[in-house]
Amino acid sequence: MPVTGNHKSFGSDNHSGAHPEVVRAIIDANVGDATAYGNDDWTAAATAELRDLFGAAGAFFVFNGSAANVLGVGLMLRPYEAVISAESSHLHVDECGATERVLGNKILTVATPDGKLTPELIASRLGGRGDEHRAQPRVVEIAQVTEAGTCYSLSELATLRDFCSAEGLRIYMDGARLANAAAHLDCELAELARYADVLSFGGTKNGAVAGEAVLVMREELVADVPYLRKQQMQLGSKMRFISAQFSALLADKLWRTSARHANSMALRLADGIRDAAGVTIRYPVQSNAVFPALSPDRIAELRREWTFHIWDETAGVVRLMTAFDTSPTEVDALIAGIRASG
Amino acid sequence: MPVTGNHKSFGSDNHSGAHPEVVRAIIDANVGDATAYGNDDWTAAATAELRDLFGAAGAFFVFNGSAANVLGVGLMLRPYEAVISAESSHLHVDECGATERVLGNKILTVATPDGKLTPELIASRLGGRGDEHRAQPRVVEIAQVTEAGTCYSLSELATLRDFCSAEGLRIYMDGARLANAAAHLDCELAELARYADVLSFGGTKNGAVAGEAVLVMREELVADVPYLRKQQMQLGSKMRFISAQFSALLADKLWRTSARHANSMALRLADGIRDAAGVTIRYPVQSNAVFPALSPDRIAELRREWTFHIWDETAGVVRLMTAFDTSPTEVDALIAGIRASG
Amino acid sequence: MPVTGNHKSFGSDNHSGAHPEVVRAIIDANVGDATAYGNDDWTAAATAELRDLFGAAGAFFVFNGSAANVLGVGLMLRPYEAVISAESSHLHVDECGATERVLGNKILTVATPDGKLTPELIASRLGGRGDEHRAQPRVVEIAQVTEAGTCYSLSELATLRDFCSAEGLRIYMDGARLANAAAHLDCELAELARYADVLSFGGTKNGAVAGEAVLVMREELVADVPYLRKQQMQLGSKMRFISAQFSALLADKLWRTSARHANSMALRLADGIRDAAGVTIRYPVQSNAVFPALSPDRIAELRREWTFHIWDETAGVVRLMTAFDTSPTEVDALIAGIRASG
Amino acid sequence: MPVTGNHKSFGSDNHSGAHPEVVRAIIDANVGDATAYGNDDWTAAATAELRDLFGAAGAFFVFNGSAANVLGVGLMLRPYEAVISAESSHLHVDECGATERVLGNKILTVATPDGKLTPELIASRLGGRGDEHRAQPRVVEIAQVTEAGTCYSLSELATLRDFCSAEGLRIYMDGARLANAAAHLDCELAELARYADVLSFGGTKNGAVAGEAVLVMREELVADVPYLRKQQMQLGSKMRFISAQFSALLADKLWRTSARHANSMALRLADGIRDAAGVTIRYPVQSNAVFPALSPDRIAELRREWTFHIWDETAGVVRLMTAFDTSPTEVDALIAGIRASG
Repeated sequence: MPVTGNHKSFGSDNHSGAHPEVVRAIIDANVGDATAYGNDDWTAAATAELRDLFGAAGAFFVFNGSAANVLGVGLMLRPYEAVISAESSHLHVDECGATERVLGNKILTVATPDGKLTPELIASRLGGRGDEHRAQPRVVEIAQVTEAGTCYSLSELATLRDFCSAEGLRIYMDGARLANAAAHLDCELAELARYADVLSFGGTKNGAVAGEAVLVMREELVADVPYLRKQQMQLGSKMRFISAQFSALLADKLWRTSARHANSMALRLADGIRDAAGVTIRYPVQSNAVFPALSPDRIAELRREWTFHIWDETAGVVRLMTAFDTSPTEVDALIAGIRASG
Repeated sequence: MPVTGNHKSFGSDNHSGAHPEVVRAIIDANVGDATAYGNDDWTAAATAELRDLFGAAGAFFVFNGSAANVLGVGLMLRPYEAVISAESSHLHVDECGATERVLGNKILTVATPDGKLTPELIASRLGGRGDEHRAQPRVVEIAQVTEAGTCYSLSELATLRDFCSAEGLRIYMDGARLANAAAHLDCELAELARYADVLSFGGTKNGAVAGEAVLVMREELVADVPYLRKQQMQLGSKMRFISAQFSALLADKLWRTSARHANSMALRLADGIRDAAGVTIRYPVQSNAVFPALSPDRIAELRREWTFHIWDETAGVVRLMTAFDTSPTEVDALIAGIRASG
Repeated sequence: MPVTGNHKSFGSDNHSGAHPEVVRAIIDANVGDATAYGNDDWTAAATAELRDLFGAAGAFFVFNGSAANVLGVGLMLRPYEAVISAESSHLHVDECGATERVLGNKILTVATPDGKLTPELIASRLGGRGDEHRAQPRVVEIAQVTEAGTCYSLSELATLRDFCSAEGLRIYMDGARLANAAAHLDCELAELARYADVLSFGGTKNGAVAGEAVLVMREELVADVPYLRKQQMQLGSKMRFISAQFSALLADKLWRTSARHANSMALRLADGIRDAAGVTIRYPVQSNAVFPALSPDRIAELRREWTFHIWDETAGVVRLMTAFDTSPTEVDALIAGIRASG
Repeated sequence: MPVTGNHKSFGSDNHSGAHPEVVRAIIDANVGDATAYGNDDWTAAATAELRDLFGAAGAFFVFNGSAANVLGVGLMLRPYEAVISAESSHLHVDECGATERVLGNKILTVATPDGKLTPELIASRLGGRGDEHRAQPRVVEIAQVTEAGTCYSLSELATLRDFCSAEGLRIYMDGARLANAAAHLDCELAELARYADVLSFGGTKNGAVAGEAVLVMREELVADVPYLRKQQMQLGSKMRFISAQFSALLADKLWRTSARHANSMALRLADGIRDAAGVTIRYPVQSNAVFPALSPDRIAELRREWTFHIWDETAGVVRLMTAFDTSPTEVDALIAGIRASG
């Protein structure tokens, strides 16, 4: 899917380049020598800031989101244990089997209406505990934001957490778009992190060149991370260049400004097309994505000028995604395009 | 090991920052939208250049050297097959067991005097072929440059290649410092690549921010790579920022200029200390590293001012490594320091 | 679940001991020396018989059913490929994640009404082919007999085979109870095997002490098996004692006599309770299992005297399983017990 | 290597059949129903006897020696940890890479003169502890009896144990021939077991049809075993038939009688050829194997009548192995043959 025509891409928030402040941070970090593999001042500073911001016991950088998920989930699993995730989760669907290959653990999936797990849905996969023939559920993987662009509310997270604690389950939160969730819920990152045992905080979709952080909320899990990260081929040698990006995202809460902007562009888009003839929006708009259902002809017509993914071929649902650098003008142009199509 | 004092680090070529041209390329690539995961113009251009330069069937970017090695080696192995490598190889020693964990394959090691394999050394690990109780040797992993800073000559490579072909073995060449080898041998990259089935070409130690290329020399191995790379968590979403770095390294053969410079600084260093009292240089100097043996007191004294690794504690051998940005003045200062020490 | 009371267990066909002919074969094989690991006359004879009987390119013994499944499925998978199986499959549910751990491959599951896959159900999991983010479906795993005691008809198998061939998918058939399927369909084993690329033939549930055979229908897959079997820890040293059991099962088609008997006992049981008040039989009875739904009280009452599994706690379905050594008297006693209960 | 001629095989102790008492136990266990997967009286009895005999926290049956080793070693390893073993160990050489494939852990090997590790040899592989780039040594794998037929003395075991405890290392003892070691040292099995954290006790080479026991000496490791055993495809359904064999081996210390006999036959053989012209015996004879060096012609001549393995082609060393059923007459015939050859 090449980016089409003269319009801003609505294909994904990783179609955007990097935020200028992030590039500036890379330039600034390119000065003199620094010990490799994270033993440098930039990394010390950025990880301290992250630990602080999340109330975390440890913060570690990896290269991408799949790596953050595999590292984070694997940290809490013994060989015979399993992860429960939504059937639509990135972990299950979009990582080419990395969990099974690199960790060797089973994923137990549950169908969800909107990408979100509930205690009831999780409970439906808890059969066979204590039975040696069955992989033993141990980690519940939730995404905040989900693949459907939805967010767990703080009270939903609290309920999940209570349920999981009572059941001896741990929570991994895929936070590739955690900034968008915190912006949507207007809460601190620590208010989300407290419901997880391990979570990720995505830099790439928030304006970084490349880089994700893994936050470890339990002290006893921290010691294993450096070895697992290295073994999983995620230890960068000139790490200062990842760390500096994160410091840029954290400075003056740039992460929040960018996420808020992206979210508001999605809302503007949704509001602009909600009452258009023949348009139905699937899922509540709670982050930087809008999922309208459109007729096949209309989709084809729009794709001649705009870049976006078809989400559900059968139902004719497409995904329109905004980013830190999506302008109101570009949104309005798409709104006009959708309204004029068909 | 923090970088000490006011001197240039001789600890590793990854203590350096990035070459200004590489950073410039990142800045230049930060323009407009681009489809994610390598479907962009920068990646198309850089991989085409690499295929051309190496005579390769395919070129693929990953984040770091461990990942390049695991991807490249794994591409040629069935589950019960093994890799033969030098006992001192990065693959075996320095990747925290990534090969065993991610691929599940056994590494059969051979002691070498200088990091280099020979037909005789390889032959010593070929016992048990056809015996179902034994992992079956299939890939020979060589590093060009080796961990000892030595290079295979073109005729040594030709001999290895002939031996391996006759024995039904494939060759993976760890080229984290391939540029330094090509500079030392004053040959084209394709002249090295033709002796391998798969090889890597390191960007990071050659002045990149982060990024390595995997070159696949056999057409029939290409189709698997995208899936394996994704599964091994090495598919970058904003890939243009890696690709652009490689285009910068290839432009006007910057890779060669940088590698030549680093090599010449190592030779200058070696020449400056070779006749110093109490100094013996281990291994021929064939790239950007010098391995002098020094007394413990002298090592301790020097480390108060300079940054470098102790290579062999018992023998008192240290590793002094130069980079694209090591200046003659810095080398001369270290020479003077070594001569004055002890 | 200890075997209760004085009644024959209806808990599983592996609650039975071994057929006397099988034990006799072990005694007879215990004579003199024999080379280990299958290089013996008993193994040569038994594997030749099996290759013949199935029209197979290769026949290999392993210790149990999980091992047969993992070996057979893994033989056809590259690291990034996936198996499609019924959500209720033994492979997915009852092997404690062996596929993910030992092979590292993903299982893509489909809900089925009766444990049987259809082209439509398989097609529902074929999305994302050619997309590097998705594990690529390659093997369809079917069980003949299924966990629900149902069998694919020969024409259903032919349809599946055609569909899979057209889609570039391979078929693995879990034949832990293949004898029961052949008895039910009154067909030769080769008539079932021709629809599979690899399949298993269960000895244990058919009266063996322990042992399963893996039949490889494609010549090009045979060479890998000895290494994979050894690596998967399934190469028995005194293999004659497994091989001799299979020769006993094959002699005078004992396998068919035993399977027919077990199947007929299940039909007798089903016929005896079908019209009983408050009893509904779920799934057609096509092998040696009957799945009646009963009230909780009745289940509790019956379990004080008889041994059987609760299959579906919510729906009150239990599994009553017969074996080669289940007598009509025992079946009639259970029929009477069920009719009298509640 | 088919068993040659009319002579007893000296090829391996698994060329023998099963001890008549073991077969008798199988026959006796073939009575009535028993719950599957080890929930039966035979298994309860045999595992209780084993726990008692070894002073173990848990006893578990698996099918073969490779499986016992992988289960036992894996029980004590995190993903980034490594096993230290002798370069000649069965674990490293003869299991087709099962440890790397099934566990994903690295084996760090040490050359030994006689198959035995010492604190010094182990210490040579402890470099890099605490360094995230290096797999972290955690388990020391020793074989009692070693591949060279040698045994650790009790005081050597005590020394190893002290060293390992001080270094935070755990000990796995491959006891495929543990009976022969206990017979040689004239000690109780518990006297050996106390120096290990986990160990195996081999049935097959001691006269069983098939079956090995894994003894877990640390209470906190027991709970994981059932899941790992199942996942590693080593849970037998009709387990009573393995358990009963072990009860037979334990009854009246049949295991010791058989091992003593085999050992004494090896000694008789060694004594009979020690002073023969052109014969040098390598390794002390401490179990049921003798390793004489002979000229190539002599080896060829002897192999026309006797079955045995060539151990070291270069040095002309062969392995002559005795078993529970090797008779003095057969030993004397071989002695005469060797003396007459050449």
